[in-house]
Amino acid sequence: MLIHEHTRQIEWGDCDPAGIVFHPRYLGYFDHCTNLLFAKVGFDLATLQARFTVIGYPVVDLHSRFLSPCRSGDEVRIETWVAEFRNSSFDVQHRLYRGDALAVEATVTRVWAAQDPADPQRMRGRPVPKEVRVALHNV
Amino acid sequence: MLIHEHTRQIEWGDCDPAGIVFHPRYLGYFDHCTNLLFAKVGFDLATLQARFTVIGYPVVDLHSRFLSPCRSGDEVRIETWVAEFRNSSFDVQHRLYRGDALAVEATVTRVWAAQDPADPQRMRGRPVPKEVRVALHNV
Amino acid sequence: MLIHEHTRQIEWGDCDPAGIVFHPRYLGYFDHCTNLLFAKVGFDLATLQARFTVIGYPVVDLHSRFLSPCRSGDEVRIETWVAEFRNSSFDVQHRLYRGDALAVEATVTRVWAAQDPADPQRMRGRPVPKEVRVALHNV
Amino acid sequence: MLIHEHTRQIEWGDCDPAGIVFHPRYLGYFDHCTNLLFAKVGFDLATLQARFTVIGYPVVDLHSRFLSPCRSGDEVRIETWVAEFRNSSFDVQHRLYRGDALAVEATVTRVWAAQDPADPQRMRGRPVPKEVRVALHNV
Repeated sequence: MLIHEHTRQIEWGDCDPAGIVFHPRYLGYFDHCTNLLFAKVGFDLATLQARFTVIGYPVVDLHSRFLSPCRSGDEVRIETWVAEFRNSSFDVQHRLYRGDALAVEATVTRVWAAQDPADPQRMRGRPVPKEVRVALHNV
Repeated sequence: MLIHEHTRQIEWGDCDPAGIVFHPRYLGYFDHCTNLLFAKVGFDLATLQARFTVIGYPVVDLHSRFLSPCRSGDEVRIETWVAEFRNSSFDVQHRLYRGDALAVEATVTRVWAAQDPADPQRMRGRPVPKEVRVALHNV
Repeated sequence: MLIHEHTRQIEWGDCDPAGIVFHPRYLGYFDHCTNLLFAKVGFDLATLQARFTVIGYPVVDLHSRFLSPCRSGDEVRIETWVAEFRNSSFDVQHRLYRGDALAVEATVTRVWAAQDPADPQRMRGRPVPKEVRVALHNV
Repeated sequence: MLIHEHTRQIEWGDCDPAGIVFHPRYLGYFDHCTNLLFAKVGFDLATLQARFTVIGYPVVDLHSRFLSPCRSGDEVRIETWVAEFRNSSFDVQHRLYRGDALAVEATVTRVWAAQDPADPQRMRGRPVPKEVRVALHNV
């Protein structure tokens, strides 16, 4: 199972008047980390779209816990991996650390989605290709 | 139980290259709706801070489901209410509709938090004042 | 000349640890106001794209002044109009008021842009259609 | 004159339905770069606030040009420096490059600001301390 590590510095503009990260920003960080994880094995979004005629892997379910606040200037480390693949969906796990302390964690369920042929405004789940599973789970 | 309704139009800058709302933005909408709900009964954040010496009600746990995508220009309606009060925490429920269709829902757990007297960088849960419970649950 | 008025409440998540609006958010507000102005005369972005084969009107130049800070919960009023049309570009003027006080103003130059036929990754200016000029300047 | 270089990867969530960076995000990048420049010489915001009893250096004027669009996944390099110090204000210059091409540039005027003793909701310009000028201009 491939784990991607990403470090970033909390920006002033990510924080709110209480001086702590505005919680939706963490979910933006995690979205970026998911893209980095896929890009690491050669499946950046542009490649995915060209090769598998999918739109991407939109989020359908998200559960996050916020254990301790981070502040502007803090350096944080985020671990990201696919915890489980199902037929057309998968769970991405994220852990954000400040120093050794786990500050935020999230489980994000995403769907491998193509345009619905019957209605281009809608999406439809598709089986996750075997090479994607192998790249992310058997490394 | 008081339910707050908020309508807003999805903005271009809230959407991503797939043309749909970038999912963390919904959680920003819901945060605003929580503040509107509290303000409706006279407990905007400035009043809370002045009257109860709390910092606010930071999020500690969040579970959200994304059922159908919204796009730039869509008008959406968000219902928000406190589903449950516990001693020092409470669950806020959000439902976002596009037309009659439920598009996104979330349960957000928040803590009634004051500065920790031992360490001003930390927060500490406090019992939710009775008048806050009454205002939001017995109206 | 058509002036669009938009009121909105400053959200907690738009403000920074100094307790004031993080300045790039104002430019997001103004972007939305431009879309509202065009939509008001029947030219929302989807219509523009379908009818004129343009991508939109991306920003090429922006000048903004920040005169007094706004805070979470403030209600602000934004006036938006096209100050000048040139051949393939135009200047949008924005004034944001808190009460009677002008708090922020901006002049934003946008280009009426289509995909470059030679390179779909690039854009190219096109003459602004007469009906668009008329709708926004002769009303 | 000290020039700070910062590289970052454009994130999916920074881009809009046209597939390009939503222009206000660039100004968020630049704000972060300004903080990094000051931190580089030992004047991160927390230090400034503790040492000089200022609030910070809020933006009062901003002029930006957008020359070519950036997309999700692009790696960009941002150069940042103080172009000019005046008594209580200064101009920060930013240049964002994708490869060798200048994509965005901005001149941002900021004020060295303290709380107004007469009205804590207001700010007031103060002379920029000599050691700050020296650190950023004579290195």
